[in-house]
Amino acid sequence: MASGMDRSLPAFPLQDAQVSIVGLGLMGGSLAAALKRAHACRRVVGAVRRRETASLAMQRGWVDAAWTGLAEALAEADVVVMATPVRTIMELLPTVGQLVRPGCLVMDLGSTKSKIARALSLLPEGVEALGGHPMCGKESSGLDAADPALFEGQVFVLAPLRRTGKGALALARQLVTAIGARPLELRAEEHDCLVAAISHLPYLLACGLVRTADQVASAQPVLWQLASSGFRDTSRLAASNVDMMLDILATNRDAVLTLLRDFQIELHRLEHLLEAADENTLRSELDSAAQRRRGLYA
Amino acid sequence: MASGMDRSLPAFPLQDAQVSIVGLGLMGGSLAAALKRAHACRRVVGAVRRRETASLAMQRGWVDAAWTGLAEALAEADVVVMATPVRTIMELLPTVGQLVRPGCLVMDLGSTKSKIARALSLLPEGVEALGGHPMCGKESSGLDAADPALFEGQVFVLAPLRRTGKGALALARQLVTAIGARPLELRAEEHDCLVAAISHLPYLLACGLVRTADQVASAQPVLWQLASSGFRDTSRLAASNVDMMLDILATNRDAVLTLLRDFQIELHRLEHLLEAADENTLRSELDSAAQRRRGLYA
Repeated sequence: MASGMDRSLPAFPLQDAQVSIVGLGLMGGSLAAALKRAHACRRVVGAVRRRETASLAMQRGWVDAAWTGLAEALAEADVVVMATPVRTIMELLPTVGQLVRPGCLVMDLGSTKSKIARALSLLPEGVEALGGHPMCGKESSGLDAADPALFEGQVFVLAPLRRTGKGALALARQLVTAIGARPLELRAEEHDCLVAAISHLPYLLACGLVRTADQVASAQPVLWQLASSGFRDTSRLAASNVDMMLDILATNRDAVLTLLRDFQIELHRLEHLLEAADENTLRSELDSAAQRRRGLYA
Repeated sequence: MASGMDRSLPAFPLQDAQVSIVGLGLMGGSLAAALKRAHACRRVVGAVRRRETASLAMQRGWVDAAWTGLAEALAEADVVVMATPVRTIMELLPTVGQLVRPGCLVMDLGSTKSKIARALSLLPEGVEALGGHPMCGKESSGLDAADPALFEGQVFVLAPLRRTGKGALALARQLVTAIGARPLELRAEEHDCLVAAISHLPYLLACGLVRTADQVASAQPVLWQLASSGFRDTSRLAASNVDMMLDILATNRDAVLTLLRDFQIELHRLEHLLEAADENTLRSELDSAAQRRRGLYA
């Protein structure tokens, strides 16, 4: 890759690159499938833990090769995309740094960015590094749930480090565009504060809601018969993969705790207005929420 | 109707009944449309506030007649279905009681049942009365959003009063079945406690979430670009009709306040576990929520 030599050069074309994806779950598998479908790069290689995942990915034509060994999968990589849960990414990065060729771009799909950015910044000099986070997902996980269309039209956050070269950033933007997503540059800390509000807080609310309803249901099991589309949608995120969510919460604790407190203030305020039967103020707060929500998805 | 004379007689057949619906919004309009589509009764008549609603309902063939006067709409009714917001139902019921013929069944589609049950119990002797609540909805409202398929496969709660005759209950069950819904009998108080958990609490959480995110967005407008399907679903109920929701909250305040407190205890517990980095306990609580949620919509 040219970017290691002259950072102002145009990006190494993605078309000529081998992209090695570490972890072929929902996100990594979907990325492999999307790259292959778009004929976006020279070769897609997967690094997986289990042989069955390797053969399934091969069967579906979503990779050109899949290895259970990291060394084999990364040996000829021009781009490495880390697509495991966040803390596994952080654990693997030092090894990845030893295995890749100089000039290789190492990026990731992790759901939090600050701690990963710190780990990326420790990669050997000469390796390019950049954080990434596609803003899409499902509550199902694993390669079985992967979908080449997962990224289409979705925002894909790119979080450059101080060391990230222009060529590396351009290459990452090529990759994002090739899978139909829309690149959006953010600082890692900014990203983490925003996703705490938009994603991690909603997850915890969904979990709290399910646990609260479950307590009511333990005395009155008929409760679940009454659950309609409103409960279904509000509670959906509670079905998310718990391992993944624990990694996210553990690596974004401060931002999540701040948002939890902000939310509790809002909810307590609504509770107080209801208790006081202050209908005019309650109406104006509920109206503001309704108008905002309608404006978002008009 | 026979039920006024002998309560053990089989129900007056719905097929022979004029059903008058007071309010042709989302719920009333959908009911009219579903009854007409199923040829379930002799005649469907609407009582509305605005002439335009009357002509739209006529145009679509969802009513045989529509009146802006209550007296005309109820004069020959065998069944009256109150389909306005909850407090309007309570305000109208005394008038409705004066306008209907003896033996007429007065029921409703209101989202809370205890206060309406009290108002229904004050109807003149000889009028049949029963609470009802179809467990379906949309965040859009009005006749434009009405849909004859809205009730298909959905639970329709019937809340009989002490005075409700067997014939009246059987007639209401006919109506529920005719529109494709599944009748479920509950006491009014039981219903209200359950929907506080399954519907009113989720609404307030969605509002609190939107207001919390909106505060973050006021400093960092890029927030909304990151909002994906998770935020969309968790926040959906915040777009509900505020007038309707204020009626619901005002007529189910105690149950809603209880559930709000239960929820805050759950959320505070999750917050505490996250703060303490007690990952084992946090994992087990999140796992229980995930398993419950997956079991509900498998």
